[in-house]
Amino acid sequence: MRWRHWGIHFGVHEVTALEKKADYERLIREFGAEPITDEILSYFKDPHILLRRRFFYAHRSLREYLDLHAKGHEVAIVSGRGPSNYMHLGHLMLFAFIFWLQKELKARVYIPLSDDEKYVFGKVKDLKEAYKYALDNALDILALGFQEGRTFLYISTHTQKIYEYATLLSRYLTYNTVKATFGLSDSANAGTIFYAAVQAAHILMPTLEMGYPVLVPIGADQDPYMRLTRDVAERVGLFKPAAIYSIYVRGLTGEPMSASRPETCIFTKDEPEVIRKKIWMALTGGRASVKEQRELGGEPEKCVVFEWLSTYVFQDEKKIEEHYRACRSGEILCGDCKRLLAASLIKRLEEHRRKRKSLIDKLERFFIHDIGDVNEVLFP
Amino acid sequence: MRWRHWGIHFGVHEVTALEKKADYERLIREFGAEPITDEILSYFKDPHILLRRRFFYAHRSLREYLDLHAKGHEVAIVSGRGPSNYMHLGHLMLFAFIFWLQKELKARVYIPLSDDEKYVFGKVKDLKEAYKYALDNALDILALGFQEGRTFLYISTHTQKIYEYATLLSRYLTYNTVKATFGLSDSANAGTIFYAAVQAAHILMPTLEMGYPVLVPIGADQDPYMRLTRDVAERVGLFKPAAIYSIYVRGLTGEPMSASRPETCIFTKDEPEVIRKKIWMALTGGRASVKEQRELGGEPEKCVVFEWLSTYVFQDEKKIEEHYRACRSGEILCGDCKRLLAASLIKRLEEHRRKRKSLIDKLERFFIHDIGDVNEVLFP
Repeated sequence: MRWRHWGIHFGVHEVTALEKKADYERLIREFGAEPITDEILSYFKDPHILLRRRFFYAHRSLREYLDLHAKGHEVAIVSGRGPSNYMHLGHLMLFAFIFWLQKELKARVYIPLSDDEKYVFGKVKDLKEAYKYALDNALDILALGFQEGRTFLYISTHTQKIYEYATLLSRYLTYNTVKATFGLSDSANAGTIFYAAVQAAHILMPTLEMGYPVLVPIGADQDPYMRLTRDVAERVGLFKPAAIYSIYVRGLTGEPMSASRPETCIFTKDEPEVIRKKIWMALTGGRASVKEQRELGGEPEKCVVFEWLSTYVFQDEKKIEEHYRACRSGEILCGDCKRLLAASLIKRLEEHRRKRKSLIDKLERFFIHDIGDVNEVLFP
Repeated sequence: MRWRHWGIHFGVHEVTALEKKADYERLIREFGAEPITDEILSYFKDPHILLRRRFFYAHRSLREYLDLHAKGHEVAIVSGRGPSNYMHLGHLMLFAFIFWLQKELKARVYIPLSDDEKYVFGKVKDLKEAYKYALDNALDILALGFQEGRTFLYISTHTQKIYEYATLLSRYLTYNTVKATFGLSDSANAGTIFYAAVQAAHILMPTLEMGYPVLVPIGADQDPYMRLTRDVAERVGLFKPAAIYSIYVRGLTGEPMSASRPETCIFTKDEPEVIRKKIWMALTGGRASVKEQRELGGEPEKCVVFEWLSTYVFQDEKKIEEHYRACRSGEILCGDCKRLLAASLIKRLEEHRRKRKSLIDKLERFFIHDIGDVNEVLFP
């Protein structure tokens, strides 16, 4: 049973797993993705904790990709960001993992900022709004440490090559296919339909330009777009881009994190007071009273605070396990955990914002096109 | 009866008119275009013969456009070319008229070379093939005399701004609208659907970039795309682009001219022997025998050679009228007309090719983007 490899470590993410497990499983059982196995982990000297814990739990073509890398082939990673809002911790974690991959594989990392996507799907008022978020988001991403000279950001509508490649690939994408994949209706606008080709162009650009195989780290629910792009790659005769799929971390309220529901997430911009307040309102696995909790112990499987601590704060399994037991035994209370999480995130984000600030004047070095006056865009 | 203004001069184009008159009329009667009137002609000191003869017979918003020009407003003309083959005389005539307009209005002329269109609609094998034709076609167009500094060519997929503007406009074009306008099926590829937005971007770029009102000289059958673009312009709050519509010159065989049926047209590349041969096979209004023709006279209304002479060769109405009468009276025979047409076109195209050649090294000055090594593309 391959499935068993995933999500059984200390019950972490178990709730997420129970809620969404059917979907996660289907990706492997029905749609032919493969589980992350110990064999995959053995490609790395010291696998990232999110790999060890199968937070990244499934993949496509990752073995072929890593084999090429092992043979000395240069490789690329593509991970896009739709700039329609400020970034929150959920976004950052994905990019933190990609930063680790960049170091491990000495990979070129391409980060398309898809202003076109957010505009045609009506998530921003105009392209100018998306532009502002794009530069703001770029600072958050780069603050994670990405290497200059190996990290290439671009805003989609500002990149001539993307339109050229999207045109090239669009001939292989029928309206019927796009409609089914994106779930569009016939009253969808022309931009949303073409965006399927643009997204494929983002993913395949490093292969088209330089023949580098591509890996896309992505949420499990994004697989339909990966399949679409892999089909196109095959038809055009390119290396089918590899993908590595993550499960999701729940938002503070227990619902999915969403930038449009600020109470579900912590933005990188959030001030200490806001962070404390949001975390104080978070869904936990606590009992009705302190007395009851001391006697019965908490239920960390249900607790978002525990989920966040084990994903964003603790850096090793031992720590997670200890904390899990302390909660289960009634040794610690919800207030303790909330304070721990808040203090840790406040400290981390203070440091993050310092790094962000120091990058403003260097930002243009990471972009493949001219970005104008950054200060004027961000602080008009 | 406004309609009467059109196509009654000396019976010229009468056959074309009879064949297509219903379509031409519908543009005015049903679709709200307006006829070219003497009032429109009065905007020009010496109106072009193709205007006087109502070869350009209908328009939209031309009065508003000319009024703005008369008030000292800078204006632009946009006329695209889909680069999927070499150019023939039918194409050149449209651009010759645009060249005249450029001088009259001191207009900026934008000439998008839509490699994307030809590629997504499968008219070229790949974008590289379209690129070659684009540069070749550019030489033909510029050989007509277009002014440097006022004439701007670009290849669609090589122009970042076009993708940005197409994205901007795509939100106003639903799949349903595009499907109906272009006559697409659901198995159409994503590129063909998005091309509606790209074409609108071509037309509206001078207005979007600089606020210049735009005029599009175009074949009458292209009106659906104009209507689409005018609707979008209105919704975005831009000056609705004006259009001026031409009827068509028949091909040598009597069928429509088409680059894919070489016998119907004369390419700018055609050698004298080829030109003579094609014209010798042309459809005429001649009688069964010389004797009969001397007695009854020819039928210039049916004759493509006469149609071509009066469109491509004779520069004034008097000459056309004289020739018409000479044919009608049996004074001249089909061989005379064919030799006259062939000699005239051979001479003109020799001169044209000289101008083309002299432009190769200057070509890049007319493009708004880098075009690489022209000689390498055209003579690999």
